[in-house]
Amino acid sequence: MANYRKVSVEDGARVELHDKLNLTGAEVSINAMPAGASVPFVHAHKQNEEIYGILEGKGKVIIDDESVEIKAGDWLRVAPVAKRQFFAAPDCGIKYICIQVKENSLEGFSMTDGVM
Amino acid sequence: MANYRKVSVEDGARVELHDKLNLTGAEVSINAMPAGASVPFVHAHKQNEEIYGILEGKGKVIIDDESVEIKAGDWLRVAPVAKRQFFAAPDCGIKYICIQVKENSLEGFSMTDGVM
Repeated sequence: MANYRKVSVEDGARVELHDKLNLTGAEVSINAMPAGASVPFVHAHKQNEEIYGILEGKGKVIIDDESVEIKAGDWLRVAPVAKRQFFAAPDCGIKYICIQVKENSLEGFSMTDGVM
Repeated sequence: MANYRKVSVEDGARVELHDKLNLTGAEVSINAMPAGASVPFVHAHKQNEEIYGILEGKGKVIIDDESVEIKAGDWLRVAPVAKRQFFAAPDCGIKYICIQVKENSLEGFSMTDGVM
């Protein structure tokens, strides 16, 4: 079996990559919302850290009681326990990726895990 | 201490987010190469799965002995042991993210780790 798997993601609605790529260390989703839309619920996590990267557009995320402005190029780490909800701006959609990983699961990385 | 951290990443060369965001479950890097450029070495990993997402442009990645064409919208999972090297196309640069996570570290996710 090849040591890799590849998928092509079309622009559009939410895509979850865990099952498509047979991921074992993360779930990665690609999310898009039009202007004025929001994720319809607040959520937190039991043990997963989330890393968000804003690919296009702008909006805000409410984290616990704080409203954080976000725009293309911004990256955030959100602790498992934090209550979060994402919103597109009233006048501009937003596209972002969300990476779910188990908190404190990473051991070595880059120079300490790589093999040349 | 707030349950989140945010950074803004300017377009340009390689950025590594682990230390900037205090990540504990992943390293995430943002990488850009101009047309004709390549990562100057082949590498593999001891225990980390890598997930690559092509954000802009096109190129190829050689994985073991296979050449895989890649373009914006493509996502790949590469096993730790695979030997890999990324190339921008001769006539087009490439921008991609690389997510390093420990293989088999994810337990629950989404519905089984989320709390509403």
